[in-house]
Amino acid sequence: GLALTWQMPHLRSALRGLKIVVLVCDTEQADLTLVDGEESCVYFIGNSLGLQPRKVKTFLDEELDKWARTGVHGHFNGQRPWALADECILDPMAELVGAKRQEIALMNGLTVNLHLLMYAMESQIRLHGLDVEKSMVLLQPRQGEETLRTEDILAVIEKEGDSIAVILLSGVQYYTGQFFDIPKITKAGQKKGCLVGFNLAHAVGNVELRLHDWGVDFACWCSYKYLNSGAGGLAGAYIHEKHSKSIKPAQRAEVTTYILANKNPELQLSEGINGFRLSNPPILLVCALHASLEVFRQTTMKALRRKSILLTGYLEYLIKHYYSEDKTNPEKPFVRIITPSQIEERGCQLSLSFSLPIKSVFKELEKRGVACDMREPNALRIAPVPLYNSFHDVHRFIEILGSAITSSKQTANNTVLSGSY
Amino acid sequence: GLALTWQMPHLRSALRGLKIVVLVCDTEQADLTLVDGEESCVYFIGNSLGLQPRKVKTFLDEELDKWARTGVHGHFNGQRPWALADECILDPMAELVGAKRQEIALMNGLTVNLHLLMYAMESQIRLHGLDVEKSMVLLQPRQGEETLRTEDILAVIEKEGDSIAVILLSGVQYYTGQFFDIPKITKAGQKKGCLVGFNLAHAVGNVELRLHDWGVDFACWCSYKYLNSGAGGLAGAYIHEKHSKSIKPAQRAEVTTYILANKNPELQLSEGINGFRLSNPPILLVCALHASLEVFRQTTMKALRRKSILLTGYLEYLIKHYYSEDKTNPEKPFVRIITPSQIEERGCQLSLSFSLPIKSVFKELEKRGVACDMREPNALRIAPVPLYNSFHDVHRFIEILGSAITSSKQTANNTVLSGSY
Ligand SMILES: Cc1ncc(COP(=O)(O)O)c(C=O)c1O
Ligand SMILES: Cc1ncc(COP(=O)(O)O)c(C=O)c1O
Repeated sequence: GLALTWQMPHLRSALRGLKIVVLVCDTEQADLTLVDGEESCVYFIGNSLGLQPRKVKTFLDEELDKWARTGVHGHFNGQRPWALADECILDPMAELVGAKRQEIALMNGLTVNLHLLMYAMESQIRLHGLDVEKSMVLLQPRQGEETLRTEDILAVIEKEGDSIAVILLSGVQYYTGQFFDIPKITKAGQKKGCLVGFNLAHAVGNVELRLHDWGVDFACWCSYKYLNSGAGGLAGAYIHEKHSKSIKPAQRAEVTTYILANKNPELQLSEGINGFRLSNPPILLVCALHASLEVFRQTTMKALRRKSILLTGYLEYLIKHYYSEDKTNPEKPFVRIITPSQIEERGCQLSLSFSLPIKSVFKELEKRGVACDMREPNALRIAPVPLYNSFHDVHRFIEILGSAITSSKQTANNTVLSGSY
Repeated sequence: GLALTWQMPHLRSALRGLKIVVLVCDTEQADLTLVDGEESCVYFIGNSLGLQPRKVKTFLDEELDKWARTGVHGHFNGQRPWALADECILDPMAELVGAKRQEIALMNGLTVNLHLLMYAMESQIRLHGLDVEKSMVLLQPRQGEETLRTEDILAVIEKEGDSIAVILLSGVQYYTGQFFDIPKITKAGQKKGCLVGFNLAHAVGNVELRLHDWGVDFACWCSYKYLNSGAGGLAGAYIHEKHSKSIKPAQRAEVTTYILANKNPELQLSEGINGFRLSNPPILLVCALHASLEVFRQTTMKALRRKSILLTGYLEYLIKHYYSEDKTNPEKPFVRIITPSQIEERGCQLSLSFSLPIKSVFKELEKRGVACDMREPNALRIAPVPLYNSFHDVHRFIEILGSAITSSKQTANNTVLSGSY
């Protein structure tokens, strides 16, 4: 397993750009009678918060130094002139989502961007005489299934598309790990006259994206998960260039009038997503994201994805091998994989459910130095991140999972036994 | 003059919390034949970007270290658990604007917050059956005057208030430096059924504010000017608690439905401004603002304002003394102060206009190590900030202004002479 990493020298050098030293003893959940505190965690939670690129500190120190030495003059000087700092990192970001530089902006948080875009979409919807409340459809998996079938999504679009104004889906769904067929859904929606957008929180830095070529209308993402920019890092937003003159931020001019008070309210709005930028860019967040994008520039999403398919495939293989349901042995605890098994329908994350109480399994994993998380109602999310996780990590995880399951089963049995007295 | 600072020991200790070492030689504009490059700038531009609190670096390093050591576990551990980091600094922030803790939020940038609030106000306006476009009035100063008279503002409200939905003004106006009578305007507007809000970009950390007691409906501010949190720092927003159940973020629930896709769209929104928080707080920006608020906690706005009145009064006195218009001597260049002369109608900033070409005066000041700025059409903004500027700075500025004016006059004369050949 490990040898595979060695075959990808650019990945190893990208890897050196990250601090991967989350030690077991530094997590409150660990039980040091069960695991060596000086070992590193099995960090399978990069889908929640990525590890720290080494250069974050360097880049921050550069800008702090500029601020201390030159004060306001930093706005238009230095490597990242603060007034335009976000623009310094547009190119590597655009590359990662497969967009043109002028189709993206780096600003705010993900949900804020989604709101700003949706306000604009709403204006569009109103312009077309549609009713906003009635223009929304919630998709549900089939009875007894946990992920959506592409065919079902396409069928809903075909059937109800004429009354749907905006289709918004995840790129990769946070709970199930399902990676939707973005180009197919986009095409189907647009055929029905819908605007089609994606929340790429769990997709960016995880799977290959070609937003421009796929013709996706709009998208948003955050940067603290697979992009490793730190908690609450700078988010991204995208609008396809075909809308650069038509989709405008809602109410922008009026609000700006308010702001400037007795100034001329005539305002030249930039076209496209650029016109959605409202506030001065936060230089400290730009530094962190810059450091992260430098790491990605040392490799490619194609190379990362190639490793990712193998890494998650290895995890899937071992889970199925050791922990599949055995109908002939109903006593044996088992693990079910919620995430689709088709590689093109998932990113690196596998979502697991258990025949044992999931909270117990989760706690036992944490005690033994696995960092992962649990989501209601019933999923343990496991994300082997190709940038910094190894095949060895997967192997360690599988071993630890074995003892976590054994321990959970004992607890469950004891509870049953004590209940029967 | 200097002795005054000495009488305020807590101000001196607050001052030590800031790096005030913007050296002349570190600014591109300086001409080292005219000024000693090793001297510190006369930094009178804290109304644009404040100086760096010493602890910014310490606090950032603390969180970078936590991130490197514990990864995602930082979300709920340590001094500033990332998931709630903004909440750690609500108290000192609320204190500075005179609000209750639950009336404010720290998030996004100023203009973003203003948009989010205005979208919500608009929903209110629509609810009351008013037309948004027609519900806006632009205030203008009287012919030949540069600042708005409170009596004129109140007269417009009295006359047109019934058709006005929202009144939005600056607290301190960025161009003129005028500090509006917030409590009076608020009361007058509310009597007419308007919602009254303020853009406090130039007011917070500059003047004493009592948002809650004044009954102000809503407000926003940024933190990189007088609050010294660095370029693009975390902004603030306020809604009075009397609206905590009535003013709701626009469309919030629907957008969240989109985000969560196949999850239950029933969502418990927090009341008041808290419900406007959308994204995870950016920990790096929280660190910088935290460091800044720690500096303010070593003094009070009352003490700062007391010094500020003297400091700006001293500047005004010297400008009038040396550079007033002299009708008996039309050759003598002069300076006019745009900012109101009543101390309760201004903060620390004085906006100046000149009988000479303003661009020339501005350039000559910059060459000699003054940091200030120029705004279209015709104002030089000079902000002696009580937290870190001294009476000595004012005195140095006045001397430099003398040689900048002399030099500008010579240039102007030469231009006239060369023109007459
Ligand atoms: C009065 C006023 N409003 C708004 C802004 C813009 O603030 P931001 O870029 O932080 O949204 C500024 C910035 O200088 C300002 O002075
Ligand atoms: C799918 C999805 N959308 C939105 C968010 C919220 O992002 P933010 O807090 O950065 O706005 C998350 C965060 O985990 C997410 O996973």
